[in-house]
Amino acid sequence: MRVRLVEPEGTRWRSDHVATEEPLEIRLVAGSVSRTIAITMRTPGGDFELAAGFLRGENVVDGRAQIRKIRYCTGPEPDADQQYNVVSVELCTPSLPELAELERHFYTTSACGVCGKANLEALQLRGCEAPPPGPDVSAEVVQRLPGRLREAQGLFDSTGGLHAAGLFDAGGEPVCVREDVGRHNAVDKVVGWALLEDRLPLTGHLLVVSGRCSFEIMQKGLVAGVPIVCAVSAPSSLAVAVAREFGMTLVGFLRDNRFNVYAGQERIVAW
Amino acid sequence: MRVRLVEPEGTRWRSDHVATEEPLEIRLVAGSVSRTIAITMRTPGGDFELAAGFLRGENVVDGRAQIRKIRYCTGPEPDADQQYNVVSVELCTPSLPELAELERHFYTTSACGVCGKANLEALQLRGCEAPPPGPDVSAEVVQRLPGRLREAQGLFDSTGGLHAAGLFDAGGEPVCVREDVGRHNAVDKVVGWALLEDRLPLTGHLLVVSGRCSFEIMQKGLVAGVPIVCAVSAPSSLAVAVAREFGMTLVGFLRDNRFNVYAGQERIVAW
Repeated sequence: MRVRLVEPEGTRWRSDHVATEEPLEIRLVAGSVSRTIAITMRTPGGDFELAAGFLRGENVVDGRAQIRKIRYCTGPEPDADQQYNVVSVELCTPSLPELAELERHFYTTSACGVCGKANLEALQLRGCEAPPPGPDVSAEVVQRLPGRLREAQGLFDSTGGLHAAGLFDAGGEPVCVREDVGRHNAVDKVVGWALLEDRLPLTGHLLVVSGRCSFEIMQKGLVAGVPIVCAVSAPSSLAVAVAREFGMTLVGFLRDNRFNVYAGQERIVAW
Repeated sequence: MRVRLVEPEGTRWRSDHVATEEPLEIRLVAGSVSRTIAITMRTPGGDFELAAGFLRGENVVDGRAQIRKIRYCTGPEPDADQQYNVVSVELCTPSLPELAELERHFYTTSACGVCGKANLEALQLRGCEAPPPGPDVSAEVVQRLPGRLREAQGLFDSTGGLHAAGLFDAGGEPVCVREDVGRHNAVDKVVGWALLEDRLPLTGHLLVVSGRCSFEIMQKGLVAGVPIVCAVSAPSSLAVAVAREFGMTLVGFLRDNRFNVYAGQERIVAW
């Protein structure tokens, strides 16, 4: 699009790309019943992964075996423009799961799903366990992760408006990198990719996010079985609390070849 | 907290401050009925403002006159630690408003409340109008806003983990600056402050956010009557669409004394 650039030397028209943000409606289908369970603002692309990852994060499904089919709702919709903004996830079960818990989660605003201390307990109740020991990752590998993440990103440089989430192996090789205007969506896309590839749990892997690390990022990582989460920017207090409670490794401010280890330093080989 | 710093020269323990993230439950009270309508992860501080701004953004209240009282739920709660994480907003009406619309909004994940094109229509239906013409703001004033925002921030520098939202007058003087781990919360706190000060609509003001500008930031600004929204980082496509649809001015990539104007350039006096 054309935008007006204003700078000390003067002003001029220039062309600019902005990150695409569109709504995605996620419908759950079981037998003959269909129900909208989420509408999220996302960057189109990886929509099936986003839907699958969202459902994993909310514990609606455990793995790929419970999903029969994912498709766009390209039926006779009133608004053709919106056809690729609606995804149906058909479950193998004859009826929809109990969604009361899920609905409770939606009583939230922008940041997150659930509530602090009560939620740490809820996570345990939901069967989340500390990831097993390992992998051992060298500090040199960790330092290189932001560069590898940027290399693997296609869109970020052109718009400056996308968050990235990347899954890496213990040697620092990228396994899956996804982007989105919403940082939680980027993580959902990565987890959904892993689910659809039948790679869960993600033991032995690192999750790297291009921005800050909040409670919800840690929750999504924990549910997916990721032992090490690295953020280019700051973690929140509750992110640190989740990491320490569940024996995860949390790295923050990972930039300029240095980083802070907030929890689980035993997995970082540097001393 | 103590964290391990890893850098090329070696590793050492150091002290680090992280941004506090805790849940806030917002309850709505009318007559003898009480209902939890949101749980959000936020940085404590400005909680009443956050609750008021959230309710304004969701069109539950129009202004201060509809709110009788806001208080912490410090009753005989089972968990004393959580007492300051629950806020009750008592309405003047004898019964709770129709919340079906509100609940629909909560069928969302992290990023936002509602859905693209349908939502632009919904916003119009909800009575949102284009802000009136003006104010005229000089480019020099706009260029100085990020610096003024940082000056007014207390916490950002120490943790690097907080978003800021600031309300400025047309001369670039700060009117209200708030911070939060969630960028939408920071905006809600500013709008809530204005509501409680009986200053809505915010005609003649600028809203400045320290990060990116998504659809939801624009929506909150529009509902509060703010004509000019400035983001230090990138806007999304839907943010631009909202600005153009409703005649708002949207400035992005406001840093290093330059910026892009994505919509409503007539309010920026530079050419």
